[in-house]
Amino acid sequence: MFEKKMHVDALYDFYGKMLTDKQNEIMDLYCNMDYSLGEISEILSISRQAVHDTIKRSEKALEHFEEQLGMYERFQRKQQAFEAIEQCILDFEKDHQPSALEKIKAILTEALE
Amino acid sequence: MFEKKMHVDALYDFYGKMLTDKQNEIMDLYCNMDYSLGEISEILSISRQAVHDTIKRSEKALEHFEEQLGMYERFQRKQQAFEAIEQCILDFEKDHQPSALEKIKAILTEALE
Repeated sequence: MFEKKMHVDALYDFYGKMLTDKQNEIMDLYCNMDYSLGEISEILSISRQAVHDTIKRSEKALEHFEEQLGMYERFQRKQQAFEAIEQCILDFEKDHQPSALEKIKAILTEALE
Repeated sequence: MFEKKMHVDALYDFYGKMLTDKQNEIMDLYCNMDYSLGEISEILSISRQAVHDTIKRSEKALEHFEEQLGMYERFQRKQQAFEAIEQCILDFEKDHQPSALEKIKAILTEALE
Protein backbone atom coordinates (compact mmCIF):
# COMPACT_ATOMS: atom_id res chain seq x y z
CA MET A 1 0.00 0.00 0.00
CA PHE A 2 2.79 2.36 1.02
CA GLU A 3 4.78 1.27 -2.00
CA LYS A 4 1.85 1.93 -4.32
CA LYS A 5 1.50 5.46 -2.90
CA MET A 6 5.22 6.05 -3.46
CA HIS A 7 4.80 4.89 -7.07
CA VAL A 8 1.85 7.25 -7.61
CA ASP A 9 3.80 10.12 -6.00
CA ALA A 10 6.70 9.48 -8.39
CA LEU A 11 4.46 9.30 -11.45
CA TYR A 12 2.75 12.52 -10.35
CA ASP A 13 6.16 14.18 -10.06
CA PHE A 14 6.88 13.14 -13.66
CA TYR A 15 3.55 13.62 -15.38
CA GLY A 16 1.52 15.88 -13.09
CA LYS A 17 1.63 18.74 -15.60
CA MET A 18 -0.34 16.59 -18.05
CA LEU A 19 -3.34 16.34 -15.72
CA THR A 20 -6.28 18.75 -15.72
CA ASP A 21 -6.30 21.69 -13.25
CA LYS A 22 -8.94 19.98 -11.10
CA GLN A 23 -6.98 16.71 -10.98
CA ASN A 24 -3.80 18.65 -10.21
CA GLU A 25 -5.43 20.48 -7.32
CA ILE A 26 -6.42 17.21 -5.66
CA MET A 27 -3.28 15.25 -6.56
CA ASP A 28 -1.06 18.02 -5.21
CA LEU A 29 -2.81 17.75 -1.83
CA TYR A 30 -2.68 13.95 -2.00
CA CYS A 31 0.86 13.38 -3.30
CA ASN A 32 2.88 16.43 -2.25
CA MET A 33 1.07 17.47 0.92
CA ASP A 34 0.21 13.90 1.90
CA TYR A 35 -3.34 14.71 3.01
CA SER A 36 -5.85 11.90 3.45
CA LEU A 37 -8.99 11.66 1.31
CA GLY A 38 -11.09 12.87 4.26
CA GLU A 39 -8.84 15.89 4.79
CA ILE A 40 -8.90 16.80 1.09
CA SER A 41 -12.68 16.48 1.14
CA GLU A 42 -12.84 19.01 4.01
CA ILE A 43 -10.27 21.41 2.49
CA LEU A 44 -12.05 21.58 -0.87
CA SER A 45 -15.60 21.20 0.48
CA ILE A 46 -16.39 18.30 -1.83
CA SER A 47 -17.50 14.77 -1.02
CA ARG A 48 -15.00 12.10 -0.06
CA GLN A 49 -16.33 10.04 -2.97
CA ALA A 50 -15.54 12.85 -5.44
CA VAL A 51 -11.98 13.05 -4.06
CA HIS A 52 -11.65 9.27 -4.35
CA ASP A 53 -12.91 9.21 -7.95
CA THR A 54 -10.62 12.04 -9.03
CA ILE A 55 -7.59 10.35 -7.48
CA LYS A 56 -8.45 7.04 -9.19
CA ARG A 57 -8.92 8.75 -12.55
CA SER A 58 -5.67 10.70 -12.11
CA GLU A 59 -3.76 7.55 -11.19
CA LYS A 60 -5.08 5.87 -14.33
CA ALA A 61 -4.02 8.85 -16.45
CA LEU A 62 -0.54 8.89 -14.86
CA GLU A 63 -0.14 5.13 -15.48
CA HIS A 64 -1.19 5.71 -19.08
CA PHE A 65 1.49 8.39 -19.56
CA GLU A 66 4.09 6.06 -18.10
CA GLU A 67 2.99 3.25 -20.44
CA GLN A 68 3.32 5.67 -23.35
CA LEU A 69 6.55 7.40 -22.38
CA GLY A 70 8.28 5.17 -19.82
CA MET A 71 10.15 8.15 -18.31
CA TYR A 72 9.91 6.93 -14.75
CA GLU A 73 11.39 3.57 -15.62
CA ARG A 74 14.15 5.24 -17.66
CA PHE A 75 14.87 7.58 -14.75
CA GLN A 76 14.86 4.71 -12.24
CA ARG A 77 17.49 2.86 -14.26
CA LYS A 78 19.75 5.93 -14.15
CA GLN A 79 19.28 6.27 -10.39
CA GLN A 80 20.17 2.62 -9.90
CA ALA A 81 23.34 3.15 -11.93
CA PHE A 82 24.33 6.10 -9.71
CA GLU A 83 23.68 4.00 -6.60
CA ALA A 84 25.78 1.14 -7.99
CA ILE A 85 28.65 3.56 -8.71
CA GLU A 86 28.34 4.92 -5.17
CA GLN A 87 28.71 1.38 -3.80
CA CYS A 88 31.77 0.75 -6.00
CA ILE A 89 33.44 3.92 -4.68
CA LEU A 90 32.84 2.76 -1.09
CA ASP A 91 34.25 -0.67 -1.97
CA PHE A 92 37.30 0.88 -3.59
CA GLU A 93 37.99 3.13 -0.61
CA LYS A 94 37.91 0.04 1.62
CA ASP A 95 40.38 -2.22 -0.19
CA HIS A 96 41.64 -0.36 -3.29
CA GLN A 97 40.82 -3.26 -5.60
CA PRO A 98 41.00 -2.04 -9.22
CA SER A 99 38.03 -4.32 -9.97
CA ALA A 100 35.76 -1.73 -8.32
CA LEU A 101 36.89 0.90 -10.83
CA GLU A 102 36.43 -1.56 -13.70
CA LYS A 103 32.88 -2.14 -12.49
CA ILE A 104 32.23 1.61 -12.52
CA LYS A 105 33.50 1.79 -16.08
CA ALA A 106 31.15 -1.04 -17.10
CA ILE A 107 28.20 0.76 -15.47
CA LEU A 108 29.13 3.99 -17.26
CA THR A 109 29.44 2.25 -20.62
CA GLU A 110 25.91 0.93 -20.25
CA ALA A 111 24.53 4.21 -18.93
CA LEU A 112 26.05 6.24 -21.73
CA GLU A 113 24.97 3.88 -24.54
CA MET B 1 21.04 23.55 -38.29
CA PHE B 2 22.58 20.16 -37.53
CA GLU B 3 22.26 20.84 -33.81
CA LYS B 4 18.59 21.75 -34.18
CA LYS B 5 17.96 18.47 -36.02
CA MET B 6 19.74 16.56 -33.23
CA HIS B 7 17.52 18.32 -30.69
CA VAL B 8 14.35 17.42 -32.61
CA ASP B 9 15.56 13.81 -32.96
CA ALA B 10 16.08 13.63 -29.19
CA LEU B 11 12.67 15.13 -28.41
CA TYR B 12 11.07 12.71 -30.85
CA ASP B 13 12.80 9.84 -29.06
CA PHE B 14 11.28 11.06 -25.79
CA TYR B 15 7.80 12.18 -26.80
CA GLY B 16 7.16 10.53 -30.18
CA LYS B 17 4.46 8.30 -28.73
CA MET B 18 2.40 11.39 -27.89
CA LEU B 19 2.13 12.44 -31.55
CA THR B 20 -0.69 11.38 -33.88
CA ASP B 21 -0.21 8.34 -36.15
CA LYS B 22 0.19 10.57 -39.21
CA GLN B 23 2.78 12.78 -37.47
CA ASN B 24 4.58 9.66 -36.26
CA GLU B 25 4.76 8.17 -39.72
CA ILE B 26 6.48 11.27 -41.09
CA MET B 27 8.65 11.97 -38.02
CA ASP B 28 9.91 8.38 -37.98
CA LEU B 29 11.12 8.77 -41.57
CA TYR B 30 12.56 12.22 -40.78
CA CYS B 31 14.20 11.55 -37.38
CA ASN B 32 15.01 7.84 -37.30
CA MET B 33 15.54 7.11 -41.00
CA ASP B 34 17.00 10.53 -41.73
CA TYR B 35 15.16 11.00 -45.02
CA SER B 36 14.94 14.45 -46.57
CA LEU B 37 11.60 16.22 -47.04
CA GLY B 38 11.74 15.48 -50.79
CA GLU B 39 12.35 11.79 -50.15
CA ILE B 40 9.52 11.55 -47.61
CA SER B 41 7.24 13.31 -50.09
CA GLU B 42 8.06 10.64 -52.72
CA ILE B 43 7.78 7.68 -50.29
CA LEU B 44 4.35 8.74 -49.02
CA SER B 45 3.13 10.26 -52.30
CA ILE B 46 2.20 13.56 -50.66
CA SER B 47 3.40 17.08 -51.44
CA ARG B 48 6.68 18.37 -50.06
CA GLN B 49 4.69 21.21 -48.49
CA ALA B 50 2.48 18.74 -46.59
CA VAL B 51 5.59 16.97 -45.28
CA HIS B 52 7.08 20.31 -44.25
CA ASP B 53 3.91 21.41 -42.45
CA THR B 54 3.56 18.12 -40.58
CA ILE B 55 7.20 18.23 -39.44
CA LYS B 56 6.78 21.84 -38.24
CA ARG B 57 3.58 21.00 -36.36
CA SER B 58 5.21 17.90 -34.85
CA GLU B 59 8.25 19.89 -33.75
CA LYS B 60 5.99 22.40 -32.07
CA ALA B 61 4.10 19.61 -30.28
CA LEU B 62 7.37 17.98 -29.13
CA GLU B 63 8.67 21.32 -27.84
CA HIS B 64 5.39 21.77 -25.97
CA PHE B 65 5.75 18.38 -24.28
CA GLU B 66 9.30 19.26 -23.27
CA GLU B 67 8.13 22.60 -21.85
CA GLN B 68 5.48 20.73 -19.86
CA LEU B 69 7.52 17.75 -18.71
CA GLY B 70 11.19 18.71 -19.11
CA MET B 71 12.23 15.05 -19.43
CA TYR B 72 14.90 15.69 -22.01
CA GLU B 73 16.59 18.31 -19.87
CA ARG B 74 16.37 16.06 -16.81
CA PHE B 75 17.85 13.20 -18.83
CA GLN B 76 20.62 15.42 -20.22
CA ARG B 77 21.68 16.40 -16.71
CA LYS B 78 22.01 12.73 -15.77
CA GLN B 79 24.05 12.01 -18.88
CA GLN B 80 26.37 14.91 -18.08
CA ALA B 81 26.86 13.53 -14.57
CA PHE B 82 27.81 10.11 -16.01
CA GLU B 83 30.27 11.79 -18.39
CA ALA B 84 31.80 13.79 -15.54
CA ILE B 85 32.24 10.60 -13.47
CA GLU B 86 33.86 8.93 -16.48
CA GLN B 87 36.37 11.79 -16.69
CA CYS B 88 37.11 11.53 -12.95
CA ILE B 89 37.85 7.81 -13.30
CA LEU B 90 40.29 8.53 -16.14
CA ASP B 91 41.94 11.26 -14.03
CA PHE B 92 42.21 8.92 -11.08
CA GLU B 93 43.78 6.15 -13.15
CA LYS B 94 46.39 8.64 -14.37
CA ASP B 95 47.65 10.04 -11.06
CA HIS B 96 45.69 8.35 -8.24
CA GLN B 97 44.73 11.65 -6.63
CA PRO B 98 41.99 11.06 -4.05
CA SER B 99 40.46 14.38 -5.11
CA ALA B 100 39.10 12.63 -8.23
CA LEU B 101 37.15 10.19 -6.04
CA GLU B 102 35.89 13.07 -3.89
CA LYS B 103 34.66 14.76 -7.04
CA ILE B 104 32.76 11.61 -8.02
CA LYS B 105 31.15 11.52 -4.59
CA ALA B 106 30.04 15.14 -4.96
CA ILE B 107 28.55 14.38 -8.39
CA LEU B 108 26.72 11.37 -6.95
CA THR B 109 25.35 13.36 -4.02
CA GLU B 110 23.83 15.86 -6.44
CA ALA B 111 22.56 13.18 -8.84
CA LEU B 112 20.90 11.19 -6.07
CA GLU B 113 19.28 14.17 -4.37
